[in-house]
Amino acid sequence: MSIFTAELTGTALLLLLGNGVVANVLLPHSKGQGGGWIVISFGWAMAVFVGVFLSASVSGAHLNPAVSLAMAVLGKISWAQLPVYLSAQMLGAMLGSLAVWAVYQRHLLACNDAGLKQAVFCTAPAIPHTLSNLLSETLGTFVLVYAVLYIAAPAATLGALDALPVALLVLAIGLSLGGPTGYAINPARDLGPRIMHALLPMGTKGSSNWAYAWIPVVGPLLGALLAAVLWLW
Amino acid sequence: MSIFTAELTGTALLLLLGNGVVANVLLPHSKGQGGGWIVISFGWAMAVFVGVFLSASVSGAHLNPAVSLAMAVLGKISWAQLPVYLSAQMLGAMLGSLAVWAVYQRHLLACNDAGLKQAVFCTAPAIPHTLSNLLSETLGTFVLVYAVLYIAAPAATLGALDALPVALLVLAIGLSLGGPTGYAINPARDLGPRIMHALLPMGTKGSSNWAYAWIPVVGPLLGALLAAVLWLW
Amino acid sequence: MSIFTAELTGTALLLLLGNGVVANVLLPHSKGQGGGWIVISFGWAMAVFVGVFLSASVSGAHLNPAVSLAMAVLGKISWAQLPVYLSAQMLGAMLGSLAVWAVYQRHLLACNDAGLKQAVFCTAPAIPHTLSNLLSETLGTFVLVYAVLYIAAPAATLGALDALPVALLVLAIGLSLGGPTGYAINPARDLGPRIMHALLPMGTKGSSNWAYAWIPVVGPLLGALLAAVLWLW
Amino acid sequence: MSIFTAELTGTALLLLLGNGVVANVLLPHSKGQGGGWIVISFGWAMAVFVGVFLSASVSGAHLNPAVSLAMAVLGKISWAQLPVYLSAQMLGAMLGSLAVWAVYQRHLLACNDAGLKQAVFCTAPAIPHTLSNLLSETLGTFVLVYAVLYIAAPAATLGALDALPVALLVLAIGLSLGGPTGYAINPARDLGPRIMHALLPMGTKGSSNWAYAWIPVVGPLLGALLAAVLWLW
Repeated sequence: MSIFTAELTGTALLLLLGNGVVANVLLPHSKGQGGGWIVISFGWAMAVFVGVFLSASVSGAHLNPAVSLAMAVLGKISWAQLPVYLSAQMLGAMLGSLAVWAVYQRHLLACNDAGLKQAVFCTAPAIPHTLSNLLSETLGTFVLVYAVLYIAAPAATLGALDALPVALLVLAIGLSLGGPTGYAINPARDLGPRIMHALLPMGTKGSSNWAYAWIPVVGPLLGALLAAVLWLW
Repeated sequence: MSIFTAELTGTALLLLLGNGVVANVLLPHSKGQGGGWIVISFGWAMAVFVGVFLSASVSGAHLNPAVSLAMAVLGKISWAQLPVYLSAQMLGAMLGSLAVWAVYQRHLLACNDAGLKQAVFCTAPAIPHTLSNLLSETLGTFVLVYAVLYIAAPAATLGALDALPVALLVLAIGLSLGGPTGYAINPARDLGPRIMHALLPMGTKGSSNWAYAWIPVVGPLLGALLAAVLWLW
Repeated sequence: MSIFTAELTGTALLLLLGNGVVANVLLPHSKGQGGGWIVISFGWAMAVFVGVFLSASVSGAHLNPAVSLAMAVLGKISWAQLPVYLSAQMLGAMLGSLAVWAVYQRHLLACNDAGLKQAVFCTAPAIPHTLSNLLSETLGTFVLVYAVLYIAAPAATLGALDALPVALLVLAIGLSLGGPTGYAINPARDLGPRIMHALLPMGTKGSSNWAYAWIPVVGPLLGALLAAVLWLW
Repeated sequence: MSIFTAELTGTALLLLLGNGVVANVLLPHSKGQGGGWIVISFGWAMAVFVGVFLSASVSGAHLNPAVSLAMAVLGKISWAQLPVYLSAQMLGAMLGSLAVWAVYQRHLLACNDAGLKQAVFCTAPAIPHTLSNLLSETLGTFVLVYAVLYIAAPAATLGALDALPVALLVLAIGLSLGGPTGYAINPARDLGPRIMHALLPMGTKGSSNWAYAWIPVVGPLLGALLAAVLWLW
């Protein structure tokens, strides 16, 4: 497996399982409907767990352009590799959310709430406020990237359990910092599915809220840069 | 312990604990009634944990005909062993759901909703739609089997914790992809208990929905084949 | 630390944290009131985790007369040690529930429901039915003891994480088999606190339901014997 | 990284993620609003996980004046180091809750309930009663500190997973003993944010309840001393 394939597969699984849990909790008739924040935050954490243990040994399991940017700044990947990571992550995120659309298609069609349909694909602020929302995404990603740099490899490899710390880290961020903006903390996780939301048919749907789309891209990149700079300093 | 006994015991525990949590959440007067999707998905995940650590060292802990099929295709078990695995899994699933029936018997008798009684044994689609439901079971099992192939053995055995990654993988699938069809992702898990539902007395009961029964058998087998083919490729 | 002290301390912590979570979920004004089955089953599982890692290296962390009985039958402890284990467990369970009473005293006084007050101490059947209730406790404990015998020590000790498999096993049993009788699965866990319920003042209170008290004692002992016999066989 | 920086960073993350989850569950419009005790107790546990694995190798990850006091009594740190620990913890707790205020600022402004606003920063008793509340904080911290002393280092380091036992211990305490006073079990966790609550603007707000403030300081210190004394004895 190449780095490109590993990042693509890992990010596709991240989005399939991550946006899958949002669909399960939000869409009508779904068996997990109304499961609440504990289901959503555990669902995303386990999505990270699966995506990471699948790709860690080949690509380092970034699955996130913000992480890849920090790794390039810190010299852990070369700048020439960065486009490989980013394109795989964007493509993977689009493929993963395409699969969610396929699995939950009847539920999307049965849903009359355009906001819920959009939420299955991309994030939206609880209270729209540019500076606050940007801060929320920046800080959440700062915690993610800064803490990831401290996740030391264990003395002896634990196999797939090596992916558990980062999954629990994302669980922590989701439980605690996900309230204001739904914790995109990953430009590919938000932009890729937003494009799919715009492209795919799902009965009557609302806008893809492009006015907000830059925040879950710029915020995470800022947060990752901050974490890298603090780490270097 | 032979492979047959290991798979039978492991699958019986999987179904006892797996269908047990469904009974606990759905049946009237049960102390976990209304516990919701987080209880159900954690219950099934922990059922996998227990079933797997009991049987892993002897049979590899398939506990699922779809997994065994993929392992035969990949040459990890011989084709001659396949019937041993499948028959043990089917028998184990029937025994496990018999035990659920015994433990929750008074609650089944107190339940007037035939749909809930059936749900304690076998899965049903949230929105009946052949192609969508088949896709849901196929894709869920594809994720299960494909990811299982990446769960590398750790450098040093962790004892029973070696079973945790696959349990968390099933947690991920349940949380995220369980919404449309209740994630059978295992032909024995669905067909065995469906037969028991048809056979066992439980007061007035509805049909065992045989028209749907082929989907949680064919879908998982398809998904497992897809995963094996992608792995080989 | 002696075996007696280890079992006493471990069982006291098991009951303090285990019955503590029941108090937190059931009693009025408590911050966790209404937290539901997921809180209760995780609370008991984590109570097991703490009790086990505190006592494992000294006494093997039975914390349960049913486990000790099985270990004596299997020759893992001597019959002469059995009374040491049992008395420490009973005393520990009483001390632990005394501490719960102390911490939640104002909430017990504020509670007008005698059934809830009793539930903070000892178990009660959801649907009273001698044979069914006995079966539920027997089978739950059978799963506990039989699976515990398969929890192999890891190649290298994991420290406190060695206690996680048995905690997850109890999580599984609680989520799945706790519905009918509230999973005592431990004679000391039920009888010790029942005695404390009878002795301690807590405003108006109902009976301690002594007519039921033998079931969570006899059921677990039967289940443990069954597990030991099956293991030997 | 120095001990001061490690404790400051770790405690800041502990409070950011810990008080973050309270904000997420309690404040209006937040996506996790109404998530309940399971979200809060897992949020705090994962906050401990992140704070501990970030700081463990440098400072031993106390993140809590009560823990540092016990470690000084037991000779594991020198008395001269104690002020370094305590000042870093207090400053970190204040910085962490400042970050929560920043992230949830729009939600604090949208909240009309002064009690909820205060709860985002510091604890309050469910039923005010000096002796009972003090006992609740003392006993909760006693369990924390006494059990921490038993968390043995594993034979081979597990990397970040070494932080999991103490996180699960705090999960246990929160689930089970958090009902009466909201489990401060850490003087810095309560006093630092209480000062921030008094200082920061957040629309109309109520008092910071200074009359109660000594209990989550004195109770934890008492509990830690008790644990240290019992350990020595």
